[in-house]
Amino acid sequence: VQTQDIIHKKRLGEKLTDSEIGFIWDGYLRGTVSEAQLAALAMAIVFQDLDTDELTTWTSCMIDSGQRLSYADNPSLPLVDKHSTGGVGDKVSLVLAPLMSAAGFRVPMISGRSLGYTGGTLDKLEAINGFSVSHTPAELTRILSECGCFIAAATDDLVPADKRLYALRDVTSTIASPALIASSIMSKKIASGVKHLVLDVKFGKGAFCETYEAALTLARRMVGLGNASGVRTIACLTSMDRLIGLTAGNAAEVRESLDTLGGEGPADLTDLVLNLAEGLAELAGKPVSRAEFIRLLKNGDALTSFATMCALQGASLPLTLKAPTDTREILAPRSAKFEAPLAEGVARAAFALGSGRSLPEDDTDPTAGVTFLVAPGTYVHEGTPIALLETSRGANALDEAERYVYASLTDVPAARVADWIR
Amino acid sequence: VQTQDIIHKKRLGEKLTDSEIGFIWDGYLRGTVSEAQLAALAMAIVFQDLDTDELTTWTSCMIDSGQRLSYADNPSLPLVDKHSTGGVGDKVSLVLAPLMSAAGFRVPMISGRSLGYTGGTLDKLEAINGFSVSHTPAELTRILSECGCFIAAATDDLVPADKRLYALRDVTSTIASPALIASSIMSKKIASGVKHLVLDVKFGKGAFCETYEAALTLARRMVGLGNASGVRTIACLTSMDRLIGLTAGNAAEVRESLDTLGGEGPADLTDLVLNLAEGLAELAGKPVSRAEFIRLLKNGDALTSFATMCALQGASLPLTLKAPTDTREILAPRSAKFEAPLAEGVARAAFALGSGRSLPEDDTDPTAGVTFLVAPGTYVHEGTPIALLETSRGANALDEAERYVYASLTDVPAARVADWIR
Repeated sequence: VQTQDIIHKKRLGEKLTDSEIGFIWDGYLRGTVSEAQLAALAMAIVFQDLDTDELTTWTSCMIDSGQRLSYADNPSLPLVDKHSTGGVGDKVSLVLAPLMSAAGFRVPMISGRSLGYTGGTLDKLEAINGFSVSHTPAELTRILSECGCFIAAATDDLVPADKRLYALRDVTSTIASPALIASSIMSKKIASGVKHLVLDVKFGKGAFCETYEAALTLARRMVGLGNASGVRTIACLTSMDRLIGLTAGNAAEVRESLDTLGGEGPADLTDLVLNLAEGLAELAGKPVSRAEFIRLLKNGDALTSFATMCALQGASLPLTLKAPTDTREILAPRSAKFEAPLAEGVARAAFALGSGRSLPEDDTDPTAGVTFLVAPGTYVHEGTPIALLETSRGANALDEAERYVYASLTDVPAARVADWIR
Repeated sequence: VQTQDIIHKKRLGEKLTDSEIGFIWDGYLRGTVSEAQLAALAMAIVFQDLDTDELTTWTSCMIDSGQRLSYADNPSLPLVDKHSTGGVGDKVSLVLAPLMSAAGFRVPMISGRSLGYTGGTLDKLEAINGFSVSHTPAELTRILSECGCFIAAATDDLVPADKRLYALRDVTSTIASPALIASSIMSKKIASGVKHLVLDVKFGKGAFCETYEAALTLARRMVGLGNASGVRTIACLTSMDRLIGLTAGNAAEVRESLDTLGGEGPADLTDLVLNLAEGLAELAGKPVSRAEFIRLLKNGDALTSFATMCALQGASLPLTLKAPTDTREILAPRSAKFEAPLAEGVARAAFALGSGRSLPEDDTDPTAGVTFLVAPGTYVHEGTPIALLETSRGANALDEAERYVYASLTDVPAARVADWIR
């Protein structure tokens, strides 16, 4: 069999066998299948797709390029995790992981960094003084057993093939395949040793998937792939045209997460966390009521979990955040009801302040962020402070962010959607 | 502008601008557009096509990777050429070029070699003792002015980009785009300095295009591209399920070409040559009657043209052919009417004898060939010699070829088609 014959089959829309997919990946990793051949195959897949069988094998081959993580099985402490396709101000991971841990689950959460306008959980956590995202598998095992959760960067040998393929797809305009997107996301989750996974798939102007239909397609591919790969998986489609909570950026989101972990977070964020927590607990065969999760927020258990996790990951207690050198208050430009800000404007404001990165090798500013000061639905008078900008990148960053904050203001109340895909 | 944005446009089926196509080719030739990116773009083109504007620019960029050949314009001696997409036993070039020259046209024919089951005009000519296919542009100019035609290999800097792209397409299963096929063929013809071109596009079991529809699509793309690029172009769609003439191979085809140049060739081959000659003369604005072309075959002028061309290209006169070490006569397996043999079987027989090559770097055997000894429509008795096999590759080659010759025999008369596309 030759590589071009396999590309040929896929170009014609035929189903590839396990051994053909294995031939491609084995050859690509050993250098006998060229970058050009994989690029051509990826483009053929954009047009002709992979079915769940093909995708499961494809993903398994990618995972086999590195080492799988695993943790001792303990049915009374189910291994659970969450992945979001990226929302503006999406700090759900920072709240959900310690909350699930407080409720008797283990959450070995491998997370990522910001790219473009999408925030990164690891960048946010690094706003905490002393917090380290890099740990060896042995350290991760110890942290998980001591506090029931961690949020850390992928180890170098967690699906190294994904990094290589993603870089190739990026320069060859072959990102757009739902199958290949699902494979890229799920490969890391499957390899991370988790057994039950809830996906938060965003749709809307601020999201990777602009339409409900695109999010539905991606969600179904990921759910199918997870279940076929030994990870029980469900997905929640949630709308993403508005900011989640009232903050976007690094330190600002950690502050809001701490509020939410203490039961004092904004209603929309708390609601989203509780939805996902309930779904995940049920999926793992250990249902927990919404009231019980609220109790764990109110009684300090979730917050204690978070603090313990941070300490085990290097943070000094009490937790302190990196402080910005420049701040600015934004005043209401006119008297009006304040509603949840438009995601796109807020994302651009947070990016301008330094919370995002244009290229993977760029730095983000841990102190950067936008914090809105008013609860949605509140009537505010012209000149009232409505937002606080923070950055360590100077007045120009503040000026640019200010313009985007104004552009994010709207009179229209948010209509949030959360549909389950199982 | 970035390469992936251009690939993205084509992936979505949008039309690329001249500057975008220029950006791709400039970058590919300078190394800033990678093989992987061109492979992905080629695959996107397989699915989304290039229109004639895009294809004309694409082809022009490919040509600009090297040097164009050109000859002084002389309206009374039009520059004409023919290209065939490759038929079994297709020796039309060897007859047509000298015939057109004898009729007062100039034919600067750049031709190719055999690959797989497709015969190569250059390999056939090399069966003539002393004949050389490699000449400098200055030599080609002199030969053309002295005898009105040449048949030679491409110089190294005639569309070098085509070799590189073809090699890439070959390993990435992106040959199949009619636009890219048209571009690969026509780039070399456009760059060769010819002004009027007739294309012989084959369809059928022995042809590159298996169906009439595929041949029609390819013919239309090439005609459109030629006319848009300053080469007046027409195409003739001809059926290719049967052997053309009665020979396939190297020396055998030269012998049959000499017969045909002398007016004593098989009817189907002579007819095909005369059709193409008439079409080409009319296209070049200098019509020549069929009767006149027949006169030039019968009176020895075409044959003299061929001999002069061969001598100028290094052959010793009188022309002699390389002789095989092994021959075998094939006898009629039963009494029946003999009809034009099936192309596929003959192609395999000729290949077995050594007239083709599996890889571009392989050698062919100049002495290899099949010659049928009976005119189609003739009744032959069992045991009568019907074919002669020649090779210098021994008895095993003869054994294999013999089996294929039997497989090529049929009782069904050939129904030849020749449709003009202008």
